[in-house]
Amino acid sequence: MDSLNEKFSKLGVDNAPGQETKQITDELDHTGEKYTGKTVDFSHGDVNAFEPIPGTLSEFIKGVNIGGEQAYTEYKGRIFIRENVSEKLSLFTGAAISADTQLIITPGTQGALFLAMGSLIGRGDKVAIVEPDYFANRKIVQFLEGAMISITLDYLKSDDKAGLDLAQLENAFKNGVKVFVFSNPNNPTGVIYRPEEIHSIAQLAREYGVAVIVDQLYSRQMFDGRRYSHLCAEYIRPENLITIIGPSKTESLSGYRLGVAFGSQNIISRMEKLQAIVSLRAGGYSQAVLTAWFNEPRGWLEDRIGAHQRIRDDLLALLRKVEGIKVRKTEAGSYLFIEIPELTVTMREFVRILRLQAGVIVTPGTEFGPRFTKSFRINFSQEYSSAVEAIKRTIHMIERYRKG
Amino acid sequence: MDSLNEKFSKLGVDNAPGQETKQITDELDHTGEKYTGKTVDFSHGDVNAFEPIPGTLSEFIKGVNIGGEQAYTEYKGRIFIRENVSEKLSLFTGAAISADTQLIITPGTQGALFLAMGSLIGRGDKVAIVEPDYFANRKIVQFLEGAMISITLDYLKSDDKAGLDLAQLENAFKNGVKVFVFSNPNNPTGVIYRPEEIHSIAQLAREYGVAVIVDQLYSRQMFDGRRYSHLCAEYIRPENLITIIGPSKTESLSGYRLGVAFGSQNIISRMEKLQAIVSLRAGGYSQAVLTAWFNEPRGWLEDRIGAHQRIRDDLLALLRKVEGIKVRKTEAGSYLFIEIPELTVTMREFVRILRLQAGVIVTPGTEFGPRFTKSFRINFSQEYSSAVEAIKRTIHMIERYRKG
Repeated sequence: MDSLNEKFSKLGVDNAPGQETKQITDELDHTGEKYTGKTVDFSHGDVNAFEPIPGTLSEFIKGVNIGGEQAYTEYKGRIFIRENVSEKLSLFTGAAISADTQLIITPGTQGALFLAMGSLIGRGDKVAIVEPDYFANRKIVQFLEGAMISITLDYLKSDDKAGLDLAQLENAFKNGVKVFVFSNPNNPTGVIYRPEEIHSIAQLAREYGVAVIVDQLYSRQMFDGRRYSHLCAEYIRPENLITIIGPSKTESLSGYRLGVAFGSQNIISRMEKLQAIVSLRAGGYSQAVLTAWFNEPRGWLEDRIGAHQRIRDDLLALLRKVEGIKVRKTEAGSYLFIEIPELTVTMREFVRILRLQAGVIVTPGTEFGPRFTKSFRINFSQEYSSAVEAIKRTIHMIERYRKG
Repeated sequence: MDSLNEKFSKLGVDNAPGQETKQITDELDHTGEKYTGKTVDFSHGDVNAFEPIPGTLSEFIKGVNIGGEQAYTEYKGRIFIRENVSEKLSLFTGAAISADTQLIITPGTQGALFLAMGSLIGRGDKVAIVEPDYFANRKIVQFLEGAMISITLDYLKSDDKAGLDLAQLENAFKNGVKVFVFSNPNNPTGVIYRPEEIHSIAQLAREYGVAVIVDQLYSRQMFDGRRYSHLCAEYIRPENLITIIGPSKTESLSGYRLGVAFGSQNIISRMEKLQAIVSLRAGGYSQAVLTAWFNEPRGWLEDRIGAHQRIRDDLLALLRKVEGIKVRKTEAGSYLFIEIPELTVTMREFVRILRLQAGVIVTPGTEFGPRFTKSFRINFSQEYSSAVEAIKRTIHMIERYRKG
């Protein structure tokens, strides 16, 4: 088990969102006074503050009452539901999607990501990954023994673009990259790729024959009236392309574990084969809930976006008063990626101090790329005043541990 | 993608249970007259005929009402539920199980199996697999690029034992097998391993340092008052041992996608890391349903066992009248693995003929091992009279296509 030992030692979970009780706290600075309030877990959204789409539990119960047909669906998901979802996603993205051959329902978007990457990445294959980007991307490449190539997203450079280094990307493609994985909106920064960036990615991938996996989990929650560019709807697009989306974030349906992947038929077919041995299918009854997705009451999405935009603005106003903090305004989704000034403790320690002394849980930046030792991510999909108070406590702790 | 192409071409799903609509029917003999009745899908149990444990939907709804805490559990599952389940499984198996370090809740037992095998099998590692046994075992080894070694289960030899060839097993262990995977009760034959067989497996695995994964999915549904031997409760047992169980079969909770794995702490820890990138967690709300498991109303399990035993007996009585059929009486679970006499068509064709001409869906024997070209599996957890009628039609079709 030696090579496996090495592999699994790289696959940490102790700093992953929601896993904070696993953090080692032995070495901690316990001298600081506590400064607590209502604990806020910024590692994920609060589905009590922002509840699931109305009517989803009823759809689930209907699914249970249907019985066997809903419990034992085809591995890809029940055809009736795939048809419902593919029609809605075709409208949303502007790309035609065949329910029969181009779409699979998965247990969460995490499930979709693993299946897509597992279907495309063989041992030693070069995989281009954006930094910063969703932590699991890198972990899955490690598990599949792919060779990772980092592409810089200089998200602080300008508000005009997401900031992907396209020269670096082309260079990587030239050097034999087989698969490119990225999230749009970007997790953890909340920036969206501009039409010309998506256009370039599409053209480069097409030119160099690179397969692309794009995680669009947050693509419905757009702020400030921005527009979103769907790679799958580009005129020239990669031959092998998988788009991932799901109702876990904006729609707060994470508890049902649902994701969807759609795109190239040959990859969907592989993903189905892999799903057959990884989890069989997304929970049958849960699948029924997808009928409520993209089918929310009038004004529901707008209200949700408005409420999040207000939280974003007020947290940003507080954060921007602090000397040395660097943060870009979230363009979509509910993350802020916050670079803080130099402290007398390491980020690893600060994250623990924040949790134990201030009741604030955040995700360290190194989960999103090894160089982000001065950053952390928050998910501000929280009850408004709790979030504001927690950010005030966070700022207080930054000041307490500020260097010099 | 060439090596991946080869890998995925081996990973077929078209003949897997529930996937029958994918079967190619072009080459079919359409000359036979139809002989249909109510379609019976023997590829899995009918949860309309045998409904989920009473009260499970209420537990799910309670989970939804709990909200965020239940939606976003630790990857291993919510600690409260892990404690509940580990206590019940400790009582059931006779082995002490730490809720904190020795148990993980997974999306179905399929999820548990993939995580356990993914945590133990590296490229080129030798893996011993029983023939016949659950089809996904072999497919997962293929995906992980392990080297498969088949161990014969001569289940038709004698009613006194399951029939595992222990000399063959020891020989494989001697030759460097790292992992042994088997189901008990055996899927597809429904035989249970006798105490002395479990004892021998435990001792051999301990002696040769082989890790063992035992799938006990059906271990509650024991017929004829038989006793079950839990490998995890053996006095001498393998140092690395994972037991898999779940409420999808006897308890008809498949639609909630729940499984549990418990055992060696180091393997559970790896499985948690792997789950973090494969699916994050079992559906949060679904986890709540586990509190109803092993907590059924008085007499519920006995009634369920009695009803299945009656179906088994009546199907067996019909099958045993047919010349050339070989089948062993199910000892636990709800499968019959039926070897049929030589036909004028291949088994591949016969399975399609059965479905299209007689409305009977069965799973071909080759899903359980390449040499079972004359067998198919049925899951007799069906409405009584539909099952009897479907078996009568099956026998009619065997006679219609009998050779000579």
